[in-house]
Amino acid sequence: MIMAKVTGSVVSTSKNEKLVGYKFMIVQPIENNKLIDKYFVAVDSVGAGIGEKVLVAMGSAARLATSENAPIDAAIVGIVDEKQGNL
Amino acid sequence: MIMAKVTGSVVSTSKNEKLVGYKFMIVQPIENNKLIDKYFVAVDSVGAGIGEKVLVAMGSAARLATSENAPIDAAIVGIVDEKQGNL
Amino acid sequence: MIMAKVTGSVVSTSKNEKLVGYKFMIVQPIENNKLIDKYFVAVDSVGAGIGEKVLVAMGSAARLATSENAPIDAAIVGIVDEKQGNL
Amino acid sequence: MIMAKVTGSVVSTSKNEKLVGYKFMIVQPIENNKLIDKYFVAVDSVGAGIGEKVLVAMGSAARLATSENAPIDAAIVGIVDEKQGNL
Amino acid sequence: MIMAKVTGSVVSTSKNEKLVGYKFMIVQPIENNKLIDKYFVAVDSVGAGIGEKVLVAMGSAARLATSENAPIDAAIVGIVDEKQGNL
Repeated sequence: MIMAKVTGSVVSTSKNEKLVGYKFMIVQPIENNKLIDKYFVAVDSVGAGIGEKVLVAMGSAARLATSENAPIDAAIVGIVDEKQGNL
Repeated sequence: MIMAKVTGSVVSTSKNEKLVGYKFMIVQPIENNKLIDKYFVAVDSVGAGIGEKVLVAMGSAARLATSENAPIDAAIVGIVDEKQGNL
Repeated sequence: MIMAKVTGSVVSTSKNEKLVGYKFMIVQPIENNKLIDKYFVAVDSVGAGIGEKVLVAMGSAARLATSENAPIDAAIVGIVDEKQGNL
Repeated sequence: MIMAKVTGSVVSTSKNEKLVGYKFMIVQPIENNKLIDKYFVAVDSVGAGIGEKVLVAMGSAARLATSENAPIDAAIVGIVDEKQGNL
Repeated sequence: MIMAKVTGSVVSTSKNEKLVGYKFMIVQPIENNKLIDKYFVAVDSVGAGIGEKVLVAMGSAARLATSENAPIDAAIVGIVDEKQGNL
């Protein structure tokens, strides 16, 4: 998983029907305490809000947090309370 | 998923038979409101046109938007109406 | 999928038995009409020749174009006839 | 697998229920005997401690070391005792 | 698959039990006839020795060359005898 900050959201009306009802959040990865320029979109599974630091699972793992039938390749799977050491 | 702009299309007559009938679009990822130089080809599943901003699912997720039997590793799964925050 | 140019081939006599009979092509990705320095090896599924522009599927998708039981992570799935727009 | 050093840990109280009970470690990849700036989070499956050099499996492989049902995309699968040659 | 050179090996005594019996080789990718600085660890399935040029399958493909139940994400699947063209 990567650690990322939720920085925004995306609205898509014309979308694959299997994606109806999911919330698309824009996330920005964090490495070594710095935000890095690799924005992408992850489906929220834990009620994360904008500004929060989160854990994002990528690839097929993302569907185990959302739906195994939906075309989802990134999901927010945890809100980070604290960390020890760099990331 | 990543956000990308549809910038063109590709025609392939000699192709794997499981790919017959799909539309191959050229997409260019968008990060932090800028188009970045990482073009690739995604199969359209939502009727996206050239110039539109879209969400693209990568890897095995792409087949859940198209066909589970076709050798597809990227699919356009939504047209972006609006977004809040950077991407 | 990515667009790539077939630039060579590889011969491997000592190989996993599930790979016997497949043709290993060296491909070089194309982005924005330029060949980029990220060569890799893809199994051919469409009879592509050296010098041709092709579509390559990566990851588990590659096995749907070749064999679901073989350790293949990249496959040539189409020969590109023409394209509109950059790639 | 990649070789990495365990550099810290992450606590997440609000997380996907399938992730309850797992330990999230921050790992930093090692290449050519140098730590590189690509931190990410891996679930521990071998009792690795901070400061140890470990092998990390990525993608669907990570779930075979932890749980096939949990949204995990990276897992520590071994502690490195010694190595010969660069990495 | 990528082409790589076997440059060393790794010993791990404390490892996931599904990995017992496998040989972990350090490999260094080759692109355009040059070794590049992206070392990683692959499980050998063909008896490759240090110094040999090999084909490495990544992701779920790696398990089809070794074991479908083991947390393996990279496997050596062939020894390269010769190649024509760059890689």
